[in-house]
Amino acid sequence: MTIETISLSRCFGGNVGFYQHQSKVCNGLMKFAVYQPPSPAEDLPVLYFLSGLTCTPENFITKAGAQQLAAQHGLLLVMPDTSPRNTGIVNEDLDDDLGSGAGFYVDALQEPWRQHYNMYSYITQELPAIIRANFPVSDRQGIFGHSMGGHGALVCGLKNPGMYRSISAFAPIVNPVMSPWGQKAFKNYLGDDEALWLGYDATELVKQQQVPFSILIDQGSADQFLVEQLMPDQFTQACANANQLLNLRMQEGYDHSYYFISTFIADHLQYHAELLSR
Amino acid sequence: MTIETISLSRCFGGNVGFYQHQSKVCNGLMKFAVYQPPSPAEDLPVLYFLSGLTCTPENFITKAGAQQLAAQHGLLLVMPDTSPRNTGIVNEDLDDDLGSGAGFYVDALQEPWRQHYNMYSYITQELPAIIRANFPVSDRQGIFGHSMGGHGALVCGLKNPGMYRSISAFAPIVNPVMSPWGQKAFKNYLGDDEALWLGYDATELVKQQQVPFSILIDQGSADQFLVEQLMPDQFTQACANANQLLNLRMQEGYDHSYYFISTFIADHLQYHAELLSR
Repeated sequence: MTIETISLSRCFGGNVGFYQHQSKVCNGLMKFAVYQPPSPAEDLPVLYFLSGLTCTPENFITKAGAQQLAAQHGLLLVMPDTSPRNTGIVNEDLDDDLGSGAGFYVDALQEPWRQHYNMYSYITQELPAIIRANFPVSDRQGIFGHSMGGHGALVCGLKNPGMYRSISAFAPIVNPVMSPWGQKAFKNYLGDDEALWLGYDATELVKQQQVPFSILIDQGSADQFLVEQLMPDQFTQACANANQLLNLRMQEGYDHSYYFISTFIADHLQYHAELLSR
Repeated sequence: MTIETISLSRCFGGNVGFYQHQSKVCNGLMKFAVYQPPSPAEDLPVLYFLSGLTCTPENFITKAGAQQLAAQHGLLLVMPDTSPRNTGIVNEDLDDDLGSGAGFYVDALQEPWRQHYNMYSYITQELPAIIRANFPVSDRQGIFGHSMGGHGALVCGLKNPGMYRSISAFAPIVNPVMSPWGQKAFKNYLGDDEALWLGYDATELVKQQQVPFSILIDQGSADQFLVEQLMPDQFTQACANANQLLNLRMQEGYDHSYYFISTFIADHLQYHAELLSR
């Protein structure tokens, strides 16, 4: 549970910190970022943000504009990395959508990935334990993410009812078994048995398991990945059929970038703060 | 005056655009970013942000969190690059503090720089003409910047009374003739005659020329460059002697990063909006 501080910068009265630690489930060094608000509380609610393809713990904390809002709401933000790195796996860095920067928030079953690429257990189990051991937090947790990280947030939330009190996403991959990104990742990490893929597909999961609050999703109508990779309609239909409350907002003219995320980040932090305060 | 649009992304109801154009004074291709607020006005005030060493037109627009405030105030933001690039000058990219990413907002007098590295004329003359020709702006202009760009904002403002209605800076190099960064840049761009350096030194300039409004500066007390490179006390003293109004705020515990800038960006946009509306 020992973590090493890489850097600390004051921001909106609190601190942005970058940390690293030896991960058991990922079998190597992992980095993450935390925004600690200026609140004196010892039982801060924790909000995890899962980033998208190619991102590191730095993208969200530098680009989204969330710190001011987290300071106002008294939320501790945690930004994990998007995969293990420097594991020694051949060609780990070759593709933007597989290997480093593309862990897809699954526990890999296949060689050469399975010794390291266990981001699902890392996000839901190991990292929360590390946060509880090192920061003044309560057991109240929320989760959100962008694109691949939106998929991760929905999957972590739906697979673990009770673990998170709030779930939201920006432009998530809601039906990865039907998207080229998801198919490539799942085939490599999980193998050819497509039945195993369904356990990491939000549109499939919500048919089996719902959460007792509304999920918030923002999706830009000008998102370049909307039609081929994201397909929010699949998830909307599945939620309707399963009586899962969902607030999916199509945002006219917005693309897949952090310019989109920053525009609506205040709504997401407001949503999480409300559910985490109950 | 022709510009080419590289990309457009909606952001807080307006648009973040990246553009490029052939620059006469820099004798090559230059890039810049603009945030155009959702205002229908045809006479928007323009606020120029000059970035620091190693930055591109992307840093401020992705990290500072200024767009929401520019949208609220109805300001058009312009983010120039920090130097010409790809000019063919040998070793142009070698150093972080000379050549590409380090134009220092001067008009170079020395070989090999003088054909291209004319950022002072670019910022004060050529780029404003391009902005006026391509965007719905008025002649009301403000200028601000960070570190090397804070130096640039102070110098452009003090050398051209009446051109800018507001000047602010984050952690500026206020006395470059006394700082190692400034000395290296000025020696290479301007030559050995140190008398020529004084024309680009805010602390020297303010002795000769003041502006009829208060200059706003924020400086972090934990800034790693404070003592060796930034030396705000020199400028404070010179302003006091010259009866130049100055609001220099030491911000306890803040460093040189965009986490610092983002924390105080709202105050700066408020300051500029007020002066630009008069």
